[in-house]
Amino acid sequence: MCEANAYLRKGKEEELLIEAVDKLIPIEGEVIKLINIFGQQKVLKARIVELALVDHRIILEEISE
Amino acid sequence: MCEANAYLRKGKEEELLIEAVDKLIPIEGEVIKLINIFGQQKVLKARIVELALVDHRIILEEISE
Repeated sequence: MCEANAYLRKGKEEELLIEAVDKLIPIEGEVIKLINIFGQQKVLKARIVELALVDHRIILEEISE
Repeated sequence: MCEANAYLRKGKEEELLIEAVDKLIPIEGEVIKLINIFGQQKVLKARIVELALVDHRIILEEISE
């Protein structure tokens, strides 16, 4: 399977947000929806820092206002 | 390997932009850099419509101004 784990970068740390992500769908206003292979969802205001698919990693950074 | 093909959505059509993408890196001003496992790069002004990792698909839409 080719899902990826999504991490939230906080300074120098990375926190696992959701594992085994299948779909990433940007919805309006910089909101990103992540859906994993188990049907779990996370919706958050974030930007993509990097996708590294061979490493199975999605790196996000939360947008704070 | 868990790379994905990147497609550019144009209306109802999807055009293969670059295959076997490993990295997707958003750079400033909605510019996206794609790097595949062969070291080939594409840089374009686009937004992500959807990532579907289990299907190995990255769907982008070009931003025209």
